[in-house]
Amino acid sequence: MDGATFPTSIGTSDPTAIRLLGQDLASDLMGKVGFGELAFWLVAGRRPTPQETRVFETVLVALADHGFTPTAIAARLTYLSAPESVQGALAAGLLGGGSRFLGVTEDSGRFLAGVLAAHKGPLPGDDEGWDALALAAVTEAREARRLVPGLGHPVHKVQDPRTPVLLAIADEEGLRGPHLRLFEAIGRVHPRVLGRTLPLNGAGVCGAALADLGLPVDLLRGFALLARAAGLLGHLAEERRRPIGMDVYMTVDRNATYVPDED
Amino acid sequence: MDGATFPTSIGTSDPTAIRLLGQDLASDLMGKVGFGELAFWLVAGRRPTPQETRVFETVLVALADHGFTPTAIAARLTYLSAPESVQGALAAGLLGGGSRFLGVTEDSGRFLAGVLAAHKGPLPGDDEGWDALALAAVTEAREARRLVPGLGHPVHKVQDPRTPVLLAIADEEGLRGPHLRLFEAIGRVHPRVLGRTLPLNGAGVCGAALADLGLPVDLLRGFALLARAAGLLGHLAEERRRPIGMDVYMTVDRNATYVPDED
Amino acid sequence: MDGATFPTSIGTSDPTAIRLLGQDLASDLMGKVGFGELAFWLVAGRRPTPQETRVFETVLVALADHGFTPTAIAARLTYLSAPESVQGALAAGLLGGGSRFLGVTEDSGRFLAGVLAAHKGPLPGDDEGWDALALAAVTEAREARRLVPGLGHPVHKVQDPRTPVLLAIADEEGLRGPHLRLFEAIGRVHPRVLGRTLPLNGAGVCGAALADLGLPVDLLRGFALLARAAGLLGHLAEERRRPIGMDVYMTVDRNATYVPDED
Amino acid sequence: MDGATFPTSIGTSDPTAIRLLGQDLASDLMGKVGFGELAFWLVAGRRPTPQETRVFETVLVALADHGFTPTAIAARLTYLSAPESVQGALAAGLLGGGSRFLGVTEDSGRFLAGVLAAHKGPLPGDDEGWDALALAAVTEAREARRLVPGLGHPVHKVQDPRTPVLLAIADEEGLRGPHLRLFEAIGRVHPRVLGRTLPLNGAGVCGAALADLGLPVDLLRGFALLARAAGLLGHLAEERRRPIGMDVYMTVDRNATYVPDED
Repeated sequence: MDGATFPTSIGTSDPTAIRLLGQDLASDLMGKVGFGELAFWLVAGRRPTPQETRVFETVLVALADHGFTPTAIAARLTYLSAPESVQGALAAGLLGGGSRFLGVTEDSGRFLAGVLAAHKGPLPGDDEGWDALALAAVTEAREARRLVPGLGHPVHKVQDPRTPVLLAIADEEGLRGPHLRLFEAIGRVHPRVLGRTLPLNGAGVCGAALADLGLPVDLLRGFALLARAAGLLGHLAEERRRPIGMDVYMTVDRNATYVPDED
Repeated sequence: MDGATFPTSIGTSDPTAIRLLGQDLASDLMGKVGFGELAFWLVAGRRPTPQETRVFETVLVALADHGFTPTAIAARLTYLSAPESVQGALAAGLLGGGSRFLGVTEDSGRFLAGVLAAHKGPLPGDDEGWDALALAAVTEAREARRLVPGLGHPVHKVQDPRTPVLLAIADEEGLRGPHLRLFEAIGRVHPRVLGRTLPLNGAGVCGAALADLGLPVDLLRGFALLARAAGLLGHLAEERRRPIGMDVYMTVDRNATYVPDED
Repeated sequence: MDGATFPTSIGTSDPTAIRLLGQDLASDLMGKVGFGELAFWLVAGRRPTPQETRVFETVLVALADHGFTPTAIAARLTYLSAPESVQGALAAGLLGGGSRFLGVTEDSGRFLAGVLAAHKGPLPGDDEGWDALALAAVTEAREARRLVPGLGHPVHKVQDPRTPVLLAIADEEGLRGPHLRLFEAIGRVHPRVLGRTLPLNGAGVCGAALADLGLPVDLLRGFALLARAAGLLGHLAEERRRPIGMDVYMTVDRNATYVPDED
Repeated sequence: MDGATFPTSIGTSDPTAIRLLGQDLASDLMGKVGFGELAFWLVAGRRPTPQETRVFETVLVALADHGFTPTAIAARLTYLSAPESVQGALAAGLLGGGSRFLGVTEDSGRFLAGVLAAHKGPLPGDDEGWDALALAAVTEAREARRLVPGLGHPVHKVQDPRTPVLLAIADEEGLRGPHLRLFEAIGRVHPRVLGRTLPLNGAGVCGAALADLGLPVDLLRGFALLARAAGLLGHLAEERRRPIGMDVYMTVDRNATYVPDED
């Protein structure tokens, strides 16, 4: 089309070399960068530090799997129907990575980034300052009848065990930045506004941590999906060894009841 | 449904803990295992050694991305059309992970595993022995008019730069096992049967290395998909920053020519 | 699982019969209902009249295909990569059926339904009344800096040829209801508010027509997807007979230029 | 890209017209062709006769839905997780349209077409001749330990109710061609070879009917997918009105039992 070119900073190949991110794949990257490190680099366009890599991989580990989620069950049922297409079963599982079951990570990061972007002046220097910012944000959300993402969990009603661990690791690595601090402050102040105490959930703290790593908040869901891809492969491997898909199907089908439409 | 239960070795949650692979996610895994290590563990059902992890992550790095592949273009076009659904764009990209562009890894691993499984007696102890086994396998494939997977590459016509690097790393880590040795032997002997010299391609050597790690050969494509998920996220991040999807679409649409059907 | 049952009005089977929508599939439906008619029935839970069926199928025909759209190209590239999985190529094409390229149908139906739902009192009885309602709605949208969906088209800048034809057919069949009337009125009045004249696009008029058929506005995108599934099958059939996927890929890859990241 | 052009017989647009299959979409197709008719035309590249359209739509109706299949459950679980993406839920459902649950249609058509293609001389003129051809084909399949696709059904163990109805309609329309005749003959003769009597299943007879319509056997799965798209939309509409996805998930999750891996 008349000289159109397609610019990219990701990769190109020629007969003797594969270049990726400006590096020689074979001599500069293979065996020298970890997979998580490369995933960060691919999205952010810069190589993470070892500290960033550790926090990033901790997030991926935290989000990789939670047993029989709807997405895992969907992937297993798809594998049951089309076992020749591992890519289809994996894709089916990832397609559930939307607003309700995997979206909290991105929603939390975006909410926190929005509060920080709207804040005038320097960031708070102490907990008291963060609490004031958090209190304003939670109050505003409540007045607009919007949920504060990352608060509460259907199973972990008192504390999500991932939250303190990720906060501690981010702190160890010098990466407990403004998004995490604001999220912690929300954890402290929200009972004053909402009238009840909810835990900071693990998916939300992951979103805050990813945002503190400088990753684009509009793509945070993508990291949850990458993490979940590993979990879904685990489910597909287990479905091969010890299948449950047929039992799930039979359970639903045998307990189906026909109800005439009410129109 | 009458007491049906759904067994799993992957994960379960209760109000205070998330268990994954028999471990406590928060205290045993977060910050203590890398993401690649966890992905291996999820599929294999056992924790890899540091040596295995290094070879495994090298494979994932080798397969993560190759620029504007059909799958990357498909993901970008899908993102152009439905930018609100990152999961859809990622899934669309992964759906191209089939027989032609991502299947070589699995095909190679399966071919090599098949030759090894059919071999009676102890495995060869030297290159001469491996060459004899390889020669028989290539000859049999040719007589059956089947391709030997992993030979040849559309761009890297003389040598795929990934092949020697992965072999060297596997050797360093003590993991140059029978699949890799047989694959190398195929690289040495195939010109005698096929009448021309083809390089051992990088996707094929990755398949051999994964098979030597004891991973299930029927799921090797899954690791190529996991690796590619990282590359596709990189493409989606770039599509946000510097889009090419609309230009691809316009290039095709403006150069469309209507041809009446010939029936 | 404690007696959970799964109610449905769609279908059940037993050894001698398949029941669908309360009918016997073999004796009541096969050969007696058309495919479009059945699709309507499945979603709406009621059998459409012949008039409704004609309007509904006209919408599906209008939306089925538009040549080399991004979704068609994505499906063809996926088929190139994984030709063994027709379902994957079709799914990849449908995944582009989101907000930008297939979403107008649903957005228009929802916008119109929202205006009608918010309107107090009886619906207008003449064009003047509809114009007043439309004027208020367009003015409100503009003040809120929201687009009015269904106005304008990148190619058909003066008139979308589908619009008058669908309006005429709906009128013929006695199904030019409030959504279509409001949409037409928007077509008449919007220049007064927006200061320029835009055509009512075909996807928008389809959304209005579907809403007038009483179909759920939150699922209107689903009908665009069903229609597009037929178009995508056409593309996959053509890709088998006269492929363009490899040329698209090569065009992009050969014109790729590496640009260092600017960070 | 050096003058590459992209030929197509499907469609093109210009500012005043949309052309599809060499017709003017608005004036020649909308309101004048049915949706099933258009789908046939898009794939086959020729307009079907009314007789062909009736058989084709009967097949689509027969395949559209069967209640709580694994694909329907997967679509509903995906909708539960990501309700904002109808396209993702639909795609997830279609991805199960592979070898096991939707593949019989294509497998049957391909098997029958293969037998007919290998047959030398004129086709049989009576049932006796068809029985001989069928007997040879079933015997050969059995000797090669291959299944004859289209025989047997997990629920309809004696007769699939769709089979006689579709045969009768094809006969009425003058379209009971060689694929259907061969399939019927297989139904008569297979007990002599297999030692037990299996019903001709509905998906198989649909494949035979589609092949007799001259549709490409490598894409027959595509029609099953198109039909199923309508059924899946019905499930998604029902999931909005009366959801079962959460109950399916809870049923599986509550009955999960942790089993340590046996390695």
